Amino acid sequence: MTATRPRQLHLNINALHSGFVPSAWRLPESAPDAFIDVHHYVRLARIAEAGKLDAIFLADNAAIVDQIDFRPITALEPTVLLTAVAAATTHLGVIGTASTSYNEPYNIARRFASLDLVSGGRAGWNVVTTADLPSARNFGLEAVPDHAQRYRRADEFTQLVKDLWDSWEDDAFIGDKATGRFVDLAKVHPVRHRGEFFSVQGPLNLPRSPQGRPVLVQAGASADGRELAARHAEAVFSASQSFEESLDYARGLKQRAEALGRGPDAVKVLAGLTTIVGSTEAEARRRRDQLVDLIPWNYSLTRLAGTLGVPVDRLKLDERLPEDLALPGGGNGNHTFFHATLAHARRGQFTVRQLIRELAGGGGHRVIVGTPEQIADDIEHWFKAGAADGFNLMPDQLPGGLQDFVDGVVPILQRRGIFRTAYEGRTLREHLGLARPAGREATRRAA
Amino acid sequence: MTATRPRQLHLNINALHSGFVPSAWRLPESAPDAFIDVHHYVRLARIAEAGKLDAIFLADNAAIVDQIDFRPITALEPTVLLTAVAAATTHLGVIGTASTSYNEPYNIARRFASLDLVSGGRAGWNVVTTADLPSARNFGLEAVPDHAQRYRRADEFTQLVKDLWDSWEDDAFIGDKATGRFVDLAKVHPVRHRGEFFSVQGPLNLPRSPQGRPVLVQAGASADGRELAARHAEAVFSASQSFEESLDYARGLKQRAEALGRGPDAVKVLAGLTTIVGSTEAEARRRRDQLVDLIPWNYSLTRLAGTLGVPVDRLKLDERLPEDLALPGGGNGNHTFFHATLAHARRGQFTVRQLIRELAGGGGHRVIVGTPEQIADDIEHWFKAGAADGFNLMPDQLPGGLQDFVDGVVPILQRRGIFRTAYEGRTLREHLGLARPAGREATRRAA
Repeated sequence: MTATRPRQLHLNINALHSGFVPSAWRLPESAPDAFIDVHHYVRLARIAEAGKLDAIFLADNAAIVDQIDFRPITALEPTVLLTAVAAATTHLGVIGTASTSYNEPYNIARRFASLDLVSGGRAGWNVVTTADLPSARNFGLEAVPDHAQRYRRADEFTQLVKDLWDSWEDDAFIGDKATGRFVDLAKVHPVRHRGEFFSVQGPLNLPRSPQGRPVLVQAGASADGRELAARHAEAVFSASQSFEESLDYARGLKQRAEALGRGPDAVKVLAGLTTIVGSTEAEARRRRDQLVDLIPWNYSLTRLAGTLGVPVDRLKLDERLPEDLALPGGGNGNHTFFHATLAHARRGQFTVRQLIRELAGGGGHRVIVGTPEQIADDIEHWFKAGAADGFNLMPDQLPGGLQDFVDGVVPILQRRGIFRTAYEGRTLREHLGLARPAGREATRRAA
Repeated sequence: MTATRPRQLHLNINALHSGFVPSAWRLPESAPDAFIDVHHYVRLARIAEAGKLDAIFLADNAAIVDQIDFRPITALEPTVLLTAVAAATTHLGVIGTASTSYNEPYNIARRFASLDLVSGGRAGWNVVTTADLPSARNFGLEAVPDHAQRYRRADEFTQLVKDLWDSWEDDAFIGDKATGRFVDLAKVHPVRHRGEFFSVQGPLNLPRSPQGRPVLVQAGASADGRELAARHAEAVFSASQSFEESLDYARGLKQRAEALGRGPDAVKVLAGLTTIVGSTEAEARRRRDQLVDLIPWNYSLTRLAGTLGVPVDRLKLDERLPEDLALPGGGNGNHTFFHATLAHARRGQFTVRQLIRELAGGGGHRVIVGTPEQIADDIEHWFKAGAADGFNLMPDQLPGGLQDFVDGVVPILQRRGIFRTAYEGRTLREHLGLARPAGREATRRAA
């Protein structure tokens, strides 16, 4: 971000299969097999690129963690899917999720560096630690590793991946036909890492990628999660139901990052935002209600009970939430959605039925139901006040909800001068206003 | 393969960056950065598809295992690269290598199933156990696991991946908007695996892929390697320098597969073949010599010493190989190239210098230097006699060497009626004449 240009908003599309609302696949315009159809994701990416969005974002799980008898899940592996998306686009960033608990750092470093090379500098890695039991049981464990251990592993893993990305200096590759010198070995460095969780010799077996390092993305509301984000993340996918919470979160995170010696713009806060668009607010509400009415209540109750860590029979549709809720998994569950959901329910004094409707049957992210103008107002308010640098958009249904956003909301944001009308750069770092990191050796020499 | 159609030859392109010969990148027509350029691989794939080849094959390493100061290496991660290739083609199979020693079965099952879904049923997985020390040191080990252990792990890994691919029955996905039933849970089965190396609960988090299972490819000349191939492989990438060795290998492997209850056509033997094409044999030889003369002798000596497991100073350019050679790594090295190289040297009574020239500076695969007609004759002879069902082509230089093969050799094979003139199917299984495997539950019910 240069001093002469006003601060610019960032928008990602979180390409959740048929859309954020669990029943989205049941709408007449939806394709039920979208979750396994590469063409669906390519179509989303093309709409997002036409709307000048920063990136497409893919969540991921390494297990079935929702009730697939009722709804689609994240299925296709993100780096594979994003490569197909990158082949069909020219500017859009491609951000994929991968777990530090169930992968090896060398493999992840390679795969995202490969994606960065193949996409011409558009890759990002969303670092997650994976808190669910079904995933643990797909990787040799009988229980989820405890929260502190997962985050210690994530920190070591992420630092190691950064070091592997830096293991070739920018000019290590020569390729001089006349002399036959292919690579300057003096500029390729082993990482020689020996840590609590990993021993990795390095170097990586490919040159430094176009962005130097793919963009590091993270989410996480716990203390450990915030610390990991402050240390490594360049963009954070946050989940706050209220403006005040988000403002606190963004300020706290940026202060912590600065305290760790990072610049004031080193980390962007992108708040999760579900949009349900109508030409009038009433029409948008009707759409929301239509979608919620297509979700079986048993599904919604089971899901909410899972988020809140209570047996499903403790939730009564026409009563408020129980008073004695505690983070599921003995403190080892998903902090983000537990806190966001609970705060929202308490604030609104909602019954369970009202809460499920307010959340659009969803998992804790904020939902705006309204006209393009109302949505743009809300976005502008959050953005200008510093409650967010941008948003990770989760339209109710896809691709329709994204098309509505791009056609309806984006032009308003552009007219207000807070969102680009054309891409100015080619890489995801350029879109996000993030500097290309100097390599480890360059930093060492400069010191 | 139906009874009424003559047996058909299979051809893959092994897309080794700038080509098989280590100096290929130095030719005037070569792009030195081909090894990290997705467009290079897309171009190769399009030439291969125009030539009606079965598949593009990508080798892989999880470390720098060659002398990158002199030559390119396999760099971009295969599933990422093959997704880009699949997006640019419609029929060509896409086979990628991944190691069973340095991955988790759940991740590999997902990634190749995703590739199969994204490519519309064109994916294959080349199973390797990875014998080199630099890879071990990138994954927390100080030594390569011993040969028998690597192959026990590979067997358990491969069976588990097959079971995960089968964990959804073919018709488990419903997606019925009217009833809201998305998946029939009665047709999605955990694998509940508890073995020596892995505990995996399953099921996989995506439906069965178009081919049922991606095609399983393997290479390996050791007794353990052959046993693994007989049990699981549907195509084997072999390395034999002589017709007799290849005939023995193919017959032995097929007999062993049949003894394990598999059909006579259940496994195809694809022999590695480097081609150096000229309009006359003399021209082809000049091209070979030009390429070999561009390889530094120190590089070739070091590489050959590594393959043969001797200190480099024991190899004298103008003497024959030492008599007392033993498999490197205390029996834990690469059996395939050790045996192929040694047999070739002994048979030809070559000096080290002659041997390096005969191998085109290469790593043990057979090299034919000649006219398109000579190459076609050789291929037809091997194919008709059963020494191979096809070939994994490794042209000297890329893309030129592949273009020469497709323009010069393929039409001859087509005229002789042993190679397709058009694709008859869409999937890699159809190209290879392999049946789509029934799922585990279907097999259980039929039993």
